[in-house]
Amino acid sequence: MRMVDIIDHKRQGGALTAEEIQFFIDGYTDGTIPDYQASALLMAIYFNDMTDDERALLTMTMMRSGDQLDLSMIDGIKVDKHSTGGVGDKTSIPLAPMIAALGIPIPMISGRGLGHTGGTLDKLEAIPNFNISLTEEAFKKQVAEIKLAIIGATGNIAPADKKIYALRDVTDTVDSIPLIAGSIMSKKIASGTDALVLDVKTGSGAFMKTEEDAKELAQALVNIGRSVGMQCMAVISDMNQPLGNAIGNALEIEESIAILKGEGPADITELILTLGSQMVVLAGKASTLDEARQLLQGVIDDGRALEAFRQMIIYQGGDPAVIENPKLMPQAQYQIELPAKENGYVTEMTANEMGIASMLLGGGRQAKTDEIDYAVGLVLHKKIGDPVQKGESLLTIYSNREDIEAIKDLLYDNIKIGPKAQKVTLIHALIQ
Amino acid sequence: MRMVDIIDHKRQGGALTAEEIQFFIDGYTDGTIPDYQASALLMAIYFNDMTDDERALLTMTMMRSGDQLDLSMIDGIKVDKHSTGGVGDKTSIPLAPMIAALGIPIPMISGRGLGHTGGTLDKLEAIPNFNISLTEEAFKKQVAEIKLAIIGATGNIAPADKKIYALRDVTDTVDSIPLIAGSIMSKKIASGTDALVLDVKTGSGAFMKTEEDAKELAQALVNIGRSVGMQCMAVISDMNQPLGNAIGNALEIEESIAILKGEGPADITELILTLGSQMVVLAGKASTLDEARQLLQGVIDDGRALEAFRQMIIYQGGDPAVIENPKLMPQAQYQIELPAKENGYVTEMTANEMGIASMLLGGGRQAKTDEIDYAVGLVLHKKIGDPVQKGESLLTIYSNREDIEAIKDLLYDNIKIGPKAQKVTLIHALIQ
Repeated sequence: MRMVDIIDHKRQGGALTAEEIQFFIDGYTDGTIPDYQASALLMAIYFNDMTDDERALLTMTMMRSGDQLDLSMIDGIKVDKHSTGGVGDKTSIPLAPMIAALGIPIPMISGRGLGHTGGTLDKLEAIPNFNISLTEEAFKKQVAEIKLAIIGATGNIAPADKKIYALRDVTDTVDSIPLIAGSIMSKKIASGTDALVLDVKTGSGAFMKTEEDAKELAQALVNIGRSVGMQCMAVISDMNQPLGNAIGNALEIEESIAILKGEGPADITELILTLGSQMVVLAGKASTLDEARQLLQGVIDDGRALEAFRQMIIYQGGDPAVIENPKLMPQAQYQIELPAKENGYVTEMTANEMGIASMLLGGGRQAKTDEIDYAVGLVLHKKIGDPVQKGESLLTIYSNREDIEAIKDLLYDNIKIGPKAQKVTLIHALIQ
Repeated sequence: MRMVDIIDHKRQGGALTAEEIQFFIDGYTDGTIPDYQASALLMAIYFNDMTDDERALLTMTMMRSGDQLDLSMIDGIKVDKHSTGGVGDKTSIPLAPMIAALGIPIPMISGRGLGHTGGTLDKLEAIPNFNISLTEEAFKKQVAEIKLAIIGATGNIAPADKKIYALRDVTDTVDSIPLIAGSIMSKKIASGTDALVLDVKTGSGAFMKTEEDAKELAQALVNIGRSVGMQCMAVISDMNQPLGNAIGNALEIEESIAILKGEGPADITELILTLGSQMVVLAGKASTLDEARQLLQGVIDDGRALEAFRQMIIYQGGDPAVIENPKLMPQAQYQIELPAKENGYVTEMTANEMGIASMLLGGGRQAKTDEIDYAVGLVLHKKIGDPVQKGESLLTIYSNREDIEAIKDLLYDNIKIGPKAQKVTLIHALIQ
């Protein structure tokens, strides 16, 4: 078999065979197939797409290129959640304890952030001494005992994906549905979960700008999961503006605690209940989404969700006192308000640029090696559709330096105020 | 400027700017742009094509990546010919002396062959001591004095094309009109000719299988030439069966001499007169193709074309006695006939496989470093449309080994005899 013939097969619009996909993934992972042939194939895949069968084969072959976590010793249907990423998206942090509080095992392997704001792991590390680097053994033991753990990747998960992902980034083959879907699902399948709920973002701050594209990706993800026997559902949710009010690591943990107390912002609480309901149904703990939602509301109301969160912090070495006193987390030196310049309604609040503002304050990484300032970020007081008076604060900037004129300009440039109230749709679609 | 943005521009279907093309060609030639980004761009060009402006820019930028021959000291409109290549295509060898005999300078830079049969240079080297490696000075002096030289590339012609060509071969981006056209024209423009006639082959033995594709390529080549002020015309000619009767280096020189004596096969003589007429018109020596054809017939009839060929052999150190005695060239030890197995008409004689048979006899290279056996090859006695009796010889195999059963099988497999005479169209179209 020759790689050039595999490229040709795809370039002519054919469907790659299992042998061809295996040859490519094996050869590219072990270095016998050079980058320049891989990038030509990726570009041909971008243009000619892949069938459902090819997508499943690609995913499974990438998955098998590395270690796979065996969670079979943990009882129950293990569920997980994946989000395609957005600004202010701390969903996993309150959602995982809520699921665990219902007795559903949720072994979550998460990531750090690059660009914009930090990732779930970065946010958790705002909790003093919180340890995201568990051994595989400790991870399994913790999930068995308290149903819940959120850690970074253990072992060598899908090395083929790592190499392909890096290549896509520099060869303009990032936004290809089969490649995105293969990348996400190969890692999730390797992580040993039984069921998966996908939160696919759409809007200006999302990778998928249109609802149509987001639905296509969500369906692709669900189809791949199902084809390998994993229960999957998906939610298409809005990312035109940030999710919730807090952007920044410690600030998002503080908001997560509020959510677990039933005192969180309406939008993110709604999204968490929507995603959580699907997870509960997939885990077999409820037969309808409505029933599942009531169960989830119950563990907020009776404090069991917050208690599960506390257990996780304790198990992972963190200081659970942050729950009562969030000020134990790093605090910013300055709190600077951003007053509205006119009367009206907020009509735009570009998610991407709010994230960049937080990153510029130090809350995210521009380069992989950048240190994160856990204290800084933004807390929004107004969101799209809200009325605002001239002089009223749109948001508070949490900063460790005073001179932030450029960041203020960036924020003003990306918050539009108009004469008419606009409606925001948070949940665009459910894919079941 | 970033290469990934240039790839994106083309991937989205945009037209690359002069600056983008310059950035790519400079960076790829000097090695700052890696192969994997170049191959992604080439694949995007394959899918999204290039405008006429882009094609001209790409060609000129590749051309300027290396040396350019300045032939301005040679008087007259200098003409050249390029063929996209085929089996039995020795056209340049008799055509160039015919043009020179009319006083038109023809400074020809030609190539070797890989796969199939030898190239023009390989064929000329069947003439004892013929030297194709002239210095640039000697080349110019010879063209100034006798109007004619056929040599290999001098200096560093279009190094960008060399690198891109090698990459295309292993990344399945060979058959892209803008890339093929840029490759051909960058070298031809660098060679300093004023006018160019293109012989674009079509049919089973050609790169362009359909007449439509061949026309598209021919038009692309002509458009690029004209956009940089080079006079261009093109002929679409048939390559379903070999051109002329001889395939093999010394055998093709012998046939070339016959053509110059007016005793050559009808098909190749017709093609030479057709291509030559365009060259004579472009050189301003005739105002119509008919008038040009009469002039060319004249230099065959009165022996001036053969005399020009003799002069070239003498100037380039070869033995001109081969003209009177072709047996001075390497001769094969065995001449083996291939008798027809049935009565009927030749309906197929696949050009590619006839070429491969000659290569397998030793007349062409499978790898770049292979030595060529100048003596071996085939001489066809029957071509498509000819009647044939069972037992009559279809062709003579010139071989230096006796055991050629596999080659005979290959030939039989690719020569079909049917009950009905088929007509062959040699010249499919003229592009002026």
